[in-house]
Amino acid sequence: MNILSDPDNSSVVDINLFVTLLCACIVIGHLLEENRWMNESITALFIGVCTGFVILLISGGKNSRLLIFSEDLFFIYLLPPIIFNAGFQVKKKQFFRNFSTIMLFGAVGTLISFVVISLGAIALLRPMDIDLAIGDYLALGAIFAATDSVCTLQVLNQDETPLLYSLVFGEGVVNDATSVVLFNAVQNFDLTHINTTVALELVGNFFYLFITSTILGVVAGLLSAYIIKKLYFGRIQSSQIRAFQDREVAIMMLLAYLSYMLSELFNLSAILTVFFCGIVMSHYTWHNVTENSRITTKHTFATLSFVAEIFIFLFVGMDALDIEKWRFVSSSPKMSISVSGILLGLVLVGRAAFIFPLSFLSNLTKKSPHEKIDFKKQVTIWWAGLMRGAVSMALAYKQFTSLGHTNVRGNAIMITSTITVVLFSTVVFGLITKPLVRFLMPSSKQLTRMISSEPATRNP
Amino acid sequence: MNILSDPDNSSVVDINLFVTLLCACIVIGHLLEENRWMNESITALFIGVCTGFVILLISGGKNSRLLIFSEDLFFIYLLPPIIFNAGFQVKKKQFFRNFSTIMLFGAVGTLISFVVISLGAIALLRPMDIDLAIGDYLALGAIFAATDSVCTLQVLNQDETPLLYSLVFGEGVVNDATSVVLFNAVQNFDLTHINTTVALELVGNFFYLFITSTILGVVAGLLSAYIIKKLYFGRIQSSQIRAFQDREVAIMMLLAYLSYMLSELFNLSAILTVFFCGIVMSHYTWHNVTENSRITTKHTFATLSFVAEIFIFLFVGMDALDIEKWRFVSSSPKMSISVSGILLGLVLVGRAAFIFPLSFLSNLTKKSPHEKIDFKKQVTIWWAGLMRGAVSMALAYKQFTSLGHTNVRGNAIMITSTITVVLFSTVVFGLITKPLVRFLMPSSKQLTRMISSEPATRNP
Repeated sequence: MNILSDPDNSSVVDINLFVTLLCACIVIGHLLEENRWMNESITALFIGVCTGFVILLISGGKNSRLLIFSEDLFFIYLLPPIIFNAGFQVKKKQFFRNFSTIMLFGAVGTLISFVVISLGAIALLRPMDIDLAIGDYLALGAIFAATDSVCTLQVLNQDETPLLYSLVFGEGVVNDATSVVLFNAVQNFDLTHINTTVALELVGNFFYLFITSTILGVVAGLLSAYIIKKLYFGRIQSSQIRAFQDREVAIMMLLAYLSYMLSELFNLSAILTVFFCGIVMSHYTWHNVTENSRITTKHTFATLSFVAEIFIFLFVGMDALDIEKWRFVSSSPKMSISVSGILLGLVLVGRAAFIFPLSFLSNLTKKSPHEKIDFKKQVTIWWAGLMRGAVSMALAYKQFTSLGHTNVRGNAIMITSTITVVLFSTVVFGLITKPLVRFLMPSSKQLTRMISSEPATRNP
Repeated sequence: MNILSDPDNSSVVDINLFVTLLCACIVIGHLLEENRWMNESITALFIGVCTGFVILLISGGKNSRLLIFSEDLFFIYLLPPIIFNAGFQVKKKQFFRNFSTIMLFGAVGTLISFVVISLGAIALLRPMDIDLAIGDYLALGAIFAATDSVCTLQVLNQDETPLLYSLVFGEGVVNDATSVVLFNAVQNFDLTHINTTVALELVGNFFYLFITSTILGVVAGLLSAYIIKKLYFGRIQSSQIRAFQDREVAIMMLLAYLSYMLSELFNLSAILTVFFCGIVMSHYTWHNVTENSRITTKHTFATLSFVAEIFIFLFVGMDALDIEKWRFVSSSPKMSISVSGILLGLVLVGRAAFIFPLSFLSNLTKKSPHEKIDFKKQVTIWWAGLMRGAVSMALAYKQFTSLGHTNVRGNAIMITSTITVVLFSTVVFGLITKPLVRFLMPSSKQLTRMISSEPATRNP
């Protein structure tokens, strides 16, 4: 048809290849479902790395990517459906029952993790002759305090281990908000003179963000319920049902997206907003729509989220081989490996530093032994939140390439180290998580099903 | 959250405003549904023009658009879901019963329309001192021979007037292919020396495009049916049904989109490909998927198509007020009005020049009086296909701004005239169509329901 503005445009080829790869990931991921080690994220990462390698060979070592990884693409298009769907499908009873523990892990825990990683980075990386400012070390703390809620969803099963799932995933959502607040604080506040006022300001800022973001999400969800109810009872006739169903679904999707973008506009935590919007929509709006729309929304949101997840991992896999970033590293491979190793170690220590003490605190407040987090569960929670993903990547790009300084040696090393940590933690930690959960909690199915006795009909 | 690459980026504001406008169009369109004059396209156009006016005032006369209308956005993202959904929801029996008439109107008719408009433009516009080459006049013929299948879908009702719907919409799809072939021919062939060889080459090119595009679409549809059937019967267990449903829906969406982009890649008619892919998917794949996925796909495709349509009309409405294009026109307002008037007249004559003769031809081959197209129906078909839409806009942009020549006076006049024709035909012709159909065919419901007796269960 030759109608695109540039007939020999390579973008058509890229889209074709990308869509084909997405199909391949879905089919291969389905065939590998029985496999106890693999999950769809790792499949997509592998296919992404392989494709990147092939493109690298074809382009003569110049390029490994089909599309350039941009924070905008990630934060504007791919993340919203994933987080919204998580809120829409989350078992609400379980989530709110563990609300205090989730907040403890997500807010206080992330702060502890941030402090440990930042101090560790200053202590261990400073002697290594990398040219980084104090703000960069603090940014590293925020970047690696951000867990990967996407990967967690794939590794833990909501039906098999509902308590762990709601804890780790809930923590992940709050954690996203906390790390973004910390990251912004590092960039905006004058952190060379930390005193009580600045610290209080940070805490106040966090609570302000948390509360306003939540309110915005809840309002958007309630608004969608109100609009659909008004339209439905106002004028609907049986002959119009069909057209009305399309409008219902469209309004739910558009309002959810609008809540995310409004939150972004007001510099709030869009992830929190869209998560609570999903919860409210599944609790109110979903019961106002027609039966067909219920089935449609439930599956459409799940499908969109599923495709966006695969998209992200395919992308990260391809981006990992981008040759420009590795140029500086090739002159000092030992330093790059040791930086990545140090960061990985700090991630492990930083997470252990809050999971075990805070679990102890949380257990003090619980009376029933079923609700307590025993040591095996603590290890699982610690391990399942070790993966670092696209949020870390996006933050690292923002910190270390924002002013076009990709050519500065220190920044290039930080970017490649981030990629290494993300790939290693996703693949190696991710591969081990499934068997670990089965090893530590062989009887988890029976045990946890008893606790989570939410009726299936209440939940979309 | 302030995480986008450019914190004071206006794109977040734009997206917020655009999504809000989309919601407003849906709600207002629903409230106006009872109105016999309005439809959702016209509502979206009005809202688009009003918003453009407000933006124009706020920006001090500099800008009227939130996003720049690009052919890529239209052809890569907005058109595929609309045409795919049309194929997916079309009443197949009705479509194939009238296949010969549809081909006659869509291929031969568009060619007649092209010739009439091109010759008319040469005869009437040449004396008017506009600096256009012979190729530009022929391009005008192709641009204004392209009917707007999107708008037709909104004006005619598949259940009330199935024969008319299938004729006008089917013609619109084939017409798209024909006009794009003609447009490319005008750009690529040496048309200053038309002889039998060139004419035969054109005809051969058309049949090649038609057949290969159709085959590609059918193959993509059958492939999706095969993959889903294989995966389903191969390894599925009851516990995996849920995850599998997401994969089914994702594979259908991705393969449909892939067929469109592959067709684009091979320079075929992507519109035809994705239309036939939709037909095959609704006929085969749809019966292989789980019950929930059937409901989900049916409604998701309809919703996506619905949102994309509103998006397009909102866009065209805003783009109409773009000030830069009207600068040249302001110096010679009379000429611009007369050019638009001439083009509108040629559109009316060009369509009449094939509808009435070809209907006569088509009636000769039909025996049953029910299948014949009587004069009232001919008038309706003529009128319902008069609207020009986004395809004309995209082709006009390609012809008259492709080499950056927006500042050439003749090109600027052609762009503004195209916008005028699109707006006028959509609003004025569109407003009159609904009452006209009711006036000419008051008993259409009873009459045509008898003819189209396809069982509802066979059709998604």
